[in-house]
Amino acid sequence: MSHTTANKNELLARVRRIAGQVAAIEKAIAGEEGCSAVLHQVAGVRGAVLGLMDELIEDHLREHVARPGLADAERARAADELAAIIRRYGK
Amino acid sequence: MSHTTANKNELLARVRRIAGQVAAIEKAIAGEEGCSAVLHQVAGVRGAVLGLMDELIEDHLREHVARPGLADAERARAADELAAIIRRYGK
Amino acid sequence: MSHTTANKNELLARVRRIAGQVAAIEKAIAGEEGCSAVLHQVAGVRGAVLGLMDELIEDHLREHVARPGLADAERARAADELAAIIRRYGK
Amino acid sequence: MSHTTANKNELLARVRRIAGQVAAIEKAIAGEEGCSAVLHQVAGVRGAVLGLMDELIEDHLREHVARPGLADAERARAADELAAIIRRYGK
Repeated sequence: MSHTTANKNELLARVRRIAGQVAAIEKAIAGEEGCSAVLHQVAGVRGAVLGLMDELIEDHLREHVARPGLADAERARAADELAAIIRRYGK
Repeated sequence: MSHTTANKNELLARVRRIAGQVAAIEKAIAGEEGCSAVLHQVAGVRGAVLGLMDELIEDHLREHVARPGLADAERARAADELAAIIRRYGK
Repeated sequence: MSHTTANKNELLARVRRIAGQVAAIEKAIAGEEGCSAVLHQVAGVRGAVLGLMDELIEDHLREHVARPGLADAERARAADELAAIIRRYGK
Repeated sequence: MSHTTANKNELLARVRRIAGQVAAIEKAIAGEEGCSAVLHQVAGVRGAVLGLMDELIEDHLREHVARPGLADAERARAADELAAIIRRYGK
């Protein structure tokens, strides 16, 4: 992961927000909050995880497949990795 | 959320596993692990969150819509809540 | 499927629109249109299919699980069917 | 879409299978088949559309981003297109 520091910090901030959302769900279930409220919280985490995934896919695509100066074999390997993720993701 | 204690404990265990997976992703990004490895970890969280959501939807359906003895208005309200979640979820 | 006639006509109109979108994709691939244009057409069909699915799930929920006057066993069976669909759907 | 003829024929066969599945759903709704059966047919189309989408994304990635000999600007443009699709897709 040859991300710039700025990008890495942004990804870490996203992951920490997701961790906070998951902690809130644990608390809501422990506190026996209403089903419907918990479901909306879980739907929020789902959206945040999908957003993180899209960002990581895009970073991988730009850094490891499209970036000028890569060797053909590097691009091919990174494209294989990405195709495997997308096939898994689309289910 | 009128879950039995057993069900609540199972849900809490699921949410704690997800929290552990999210913590591992934070560590992986901080440690600059490979993109592809991080992507597979995020895909794993996505699957776990979708599984939790399915479980909560099913609990809500059985407890608040289908359970014998509920008033018609209670069922109708719970069905409205569930329909709102599913419309949000399917996007 | 004990839909009213109005509802049935609306569902049929939705399915026919999807059939039209699929026919347009076939034509686009046959005519060697650009990858990106075809991908957006397929994303459009995906959205339309998810929308149809949400509508059918909601109809099933209201008609066969929540509707006043159903027998407990009918509700339980319809809830089982819905739970099976949602587990399949969420993957 | 610079697909080989073999690939194009395979994509067309996939799209025609989807068209056949959509036609079967129309018939099932018109014939008032059970909700649950129709829902499983729609879930089948959803799976087939996601599979087609994954295949098109993978083709685009290999042909227009990773293929040896492309100009940097061509790769960058194709990566932009793919990122836009993936952001739309992941919702």
